[in-house]
Amino acid sequence: MAVVDARTWMEVLSPETCWRLLSTQGVGRIAYLLAGEPEVVPVNYCVDRRSIVFRADPGAKLAALARNERVAFEIDESEPDTQSGWSVLIKGTAELVTKAADLRQLQQLPLTPWALGRKDVWVRILPESVTGRAIHHGSHDD
Amino acid sequence: MAVVDARTWMEVLSPETCWRLLSTQGVGRIAYLLAGEPEVVPVNYCVDRRSIVFRADPGAKLAALARNERVAFEIDESEPDTQSGWSVLIKGTAELVTKAADLRQLQQLPLTPWALGRKDVWVRILPESVTGRAIHHGSHDD
Repeated sequence: MAVVDARTWMEVLSPETCWRLLSTQGVGRIAYLLAGEPEVVPVNYCVDRRSIVFRADPGAKLAALARNERVAFEIDESEPDTQSGWSVLIKGTAELVTKAADLRQLQQLPLTPWALGRKDVWVRILPESVTGRAIHHGSHDD
Repeated sequence: MAVVDARTWMEVLSPETCWRLLSTQGVGRIAYLLAGEPEVVPVNYCVDRRSIVFRADPGAKLAALARNERVAFEIDESEPDTQSGWSVLIKGTAELVTKAADLRQLQQLPLTPWALGRKDVWVRILPESVTGRAIHHGSHDD
């Protein structure tokens, strides 16, 4: 843990804590390359074992992921009043889920698309790294 | 406005609405290329006229921005209970603010870094596009 002064300090989150936080949230942001440029959009997701799954429609996002599967996935929460917050970042690859058995299993997850469209394509993010940090504001001894 | 059924509909937000939402939030996510791969991290930011400004420390993020200035910047808010939410996406370029007069003006903004470090480098995102959408859940006639 790094302490910068008596009021502000940063905590590096363990992978276990990161996965616990991932399991408590339902909306994250996926960053990917679209025509060679960074793009970032919110997705509603579920944790499936040690991966992130979400639903998508065929379209520009999926086509971009098929061309360049490297992705980053982020969740965060912040409290402006106390200037505190935490974030978790996954880096890895995205792949379409195509095996019938996998799809049947995923369809049991409580993942309803919010947006328009049938979103019957399932995408899985396979993490290569999971990192997180929290910024606390207030007395370190509290 | 696109209506998919009686309960779910999507609204394309006007640029004016996007800027109003940007001015109400203080934490967004910047996506950029780091060693050729997408990266996404939260930043606390301010709107300065029609640009986004944030503070950073010299480091990997700034070095990456210097090598590839194309960025995406995103804010969102969601209500899991009603499966409603909105998001705003800026695409553009990032530049370091170096002119003394600009820096003096920016230092008047209510932008205090939350995290460790002095963060005395100011970065400005110059938007080329600003788009947003909202997903509503509930009767369209409400």
